[in-house]
Amino acid sequence: MMNKNYTIKEYTAVMDERLKKAFPGEKDIVTEAMSYSLEAGGKRIRPVLTLEFCRLCGGDITEALPLAEAVEMVHTYSLIHDDLPCMDDDDMRRGRPSCHKQFGEAYALLAGDGLLTYAFYNIADSEFAKKNPSAAVKAVKILSECAGKDGMIGGQTIDLLSENKSISEEELRHMDALKTGMLIKAAALLGCVAAGADEDKMKAAEEFCDNLGLAFQVVDDILDVEGDESLFGKPVGSDAQSGKSTYVTLMGLEKAKQLAAALTSNAVNALIPFGEQAAFLKELALSLLTRKN
Amino acid sequence: MMNKNYTIKEYTAVMDERLKKAFPGEKDIVTEAMSYSLEAGGKRIRPVLTLEFCRLCGGDITEALPLAEAVEMVHTYSLIHDDLPCMDDDDMRRGRPSCHKQFGEAYALLAGDGLLTYAFYNIADSEFAKKNPSAAVKAVKILSECAGKDGMIGGQTIDLLSENKSISEEELRHMDALKTGMLIKAAALLGCVAAGADEDKMKAAEEFCDNLGLAFQVVDDILDVEGDESLFGKPVGSDAQSGKSTYVTLMGLEKAKQLAAALTSNAVNALIPFGEQAAFLKELALSLLTRKN
Repeated sequence: MMNKNYTIKEYTAVMDERLKKAFPGEKDIVTEAMSYSLEAGGKRIRPVLTLEFCRLCGGDITEALPLAEAVEMVHTYSLIHDDLPCMDDDDMRRGRPSCHKQFGEAYALLAGDGLLTYAFYNIADSEFAKKNPSAAVKAVKILSECAGKDGMIGGQTIDLLSENKSISEEELRHMDALKTGMLIKAAALLGCVAAGADEDKMKAAEEFCDNLGLAFQVVDDILDVEGDESLFGKPVGSDAQSGKSTYVTLMGLEKAKQLAAALTSNAVNALIPFGEQAAFLKELALSLLTRKN
Repeated sequence: MMNKNYTIKEYTAVMDERLKKAFPGEKDIVTEAMSYSLEAGGKRIRPVLTLEFCRLCGGDITEALPLAEAVEMVHTYSLIHDDLPCMDDDDMRRGRPSCHKQFGEAYALLAGDGLLTYAFYNIADSEFAKKNPSAAVKAVKILSECAGKDGMIGGQTIDLLSENKSISEEELRHMDALKTGMLIKAAALLGCVAAGADEDKMKAAEEFCDNLGLAFQVVDDILDVEGDESLFGKPVGSDAQSGKSTYVTLMGLEKAKQLAAALTSNAVNALIPFGEQAAFLKELALSLLTRKN
C-alpha cells in the first residue's frame, strides 16, 4: 500500500474490506455473531485515526492495519456488551437488530468476549509484531490499558453508577473521557506506535484526541435535542428524555455549542507540530463539529 | 525467587498472595468485583502449571509470574461470564455468591471484561515483556488463541449448542478439549515461553496437557456421580441429572474410570523427555486422578 494521502471514504473502504475478512474459514454461531457486529459498519473513526496518525508520523499504513482492526474489534465488543439486557438493553444498533436480538444473549456475550480476545490475537499474530515485537508489546499495553478498568470499562462503570441521578459537568467530562475518550486515544496512539513516532508526537496525538473525543460527545448531546438522529443511532432526545445529565441539560444549548467549538479549536491547535500534513485530521475534526447526524 | 523445587501448596500460596495485589490503589465497584472473583481461590492449577513448566524448562519462575497471573485472570473471567443468568445462571461459585449475585449482572459483566483485558495488560506491562518482547508477543498470541473463538470460547459455543441434546463421546471430547483443555495448554505453554523452551519441550508440554485436561474432565464426571462435590463445586449428580451427556452416561462408570487412568498414564508418559525433574507434574497428574473432590 502506497503512503499517499487518503480520503476518509478510502480509509473506510479499506477497513470495511479488511474487517470482512477478519475471520476466514468456517464460522460457528459465535464467530458469525462477531462478524455480524464487526461488519455492521459505522464511521470507523477509530481505525481511521490509527491509519492517519501512522501516515502522519511517517509510517507505512500497512503496518498499522492489524492495530486499526484491533481497535475496531474492541469498540465493537463494547457495543455488543453495552446493548445487552443487563446494560442498556438496546434492541437496535445501526439500523439492524443488536447482536443479542439477532443471535440470543448467550452467543452475543461470547461474541463480545471473542472480539475482545481476538483484538489482542490480531496484534500478536501480525507481521508487524514479528518485525517489531517491542512496538507490538507497546500496542498491546496501550490498547489493554485504554480499554480496561482504568479506561473504557472505568467509564462504563461511572455511567452505571450515575444512572437515575444528575451529575456535574466535571463528572460528565470525566466519564466521557474514560468511556469514549480513552479508546479514541488508543486508536491514535496505536497509529503513532506503528510509525515508531517519538514522545512529542504521541503527546500531540493525545492532546488532539482528548479534545476531539470530548467535542464528539458534546456534539452528540446537541444532536440529541436538535438533530434527526445522533451519531450512535439513538432516537432523537433519548438522553434528554431519560433524565440523564448531558452537556445540554447541564449548561444549555448555546453554551454547549460554544464548548464544542472551543474543544474542536483545541484539537486543531494540537495538530500544529504536524504542519500541513495534518490537513486531513483538521478537516475530520471540523466535520465532526458540523455534522448533522 | 530461587529456582528450587516447590510444593503445590507453596505455588498456590505465592499465587494467592500475588493475585491479592493484582489491582493496587483505589477500587471502583467493578475492580472490587474483579478482585472478589480473582481472590476466591480454587486450586490455581493453571498458574501452577505455568510456574512449574517454566522451572522444568530451566527458566526463572519470577519471569513466569505475570504470565501465570494472566492465565488465572482469563480463567476467572470465564467463570464470571459462565455464571451469568444468560449462560449457566449459577448463584454460587466456590462456596460464595457468584460475582453477579454479589455485585449485580452489569458489574459482573464488566468485571469479566475487565479481567480479560487486564490479563493482556499484565503481560505487556511486565518486566519480562521489557526484557523479552518477542517472548511476550508469543505469550499474548498463545493466550489469546487458546482463550478465543478457536479455543475456550469455541468450546463454550459447542456446549451451548449441545444443550438439551445428547452428544457422542467424540463430540464431548472435542468440546472439553476446547472448553477447558485449551486454557490448560496455554498455561503450560506460557511457562515454556517464559523459560525460552525449545519446540520439543513445548510439544511435550502440549501432549501432557491434552491428556491431563481430558482426564480432569472424565474424573469430574465420575465424581459427579460418586463424589461428595466435584472440583468445580457443582452439586453431586448435577450433570447426570440435567440430562447432559457425560463420560459416565456415555460409556458407563467402569469404562470412564479406565479412560481416566489411561489418559493420566499418557500424560505421565509425555513427561519422559523432562526426566526426573518432572516428578512434581507426575504427582500432580496422579493426584488429580485419585482426588475425591
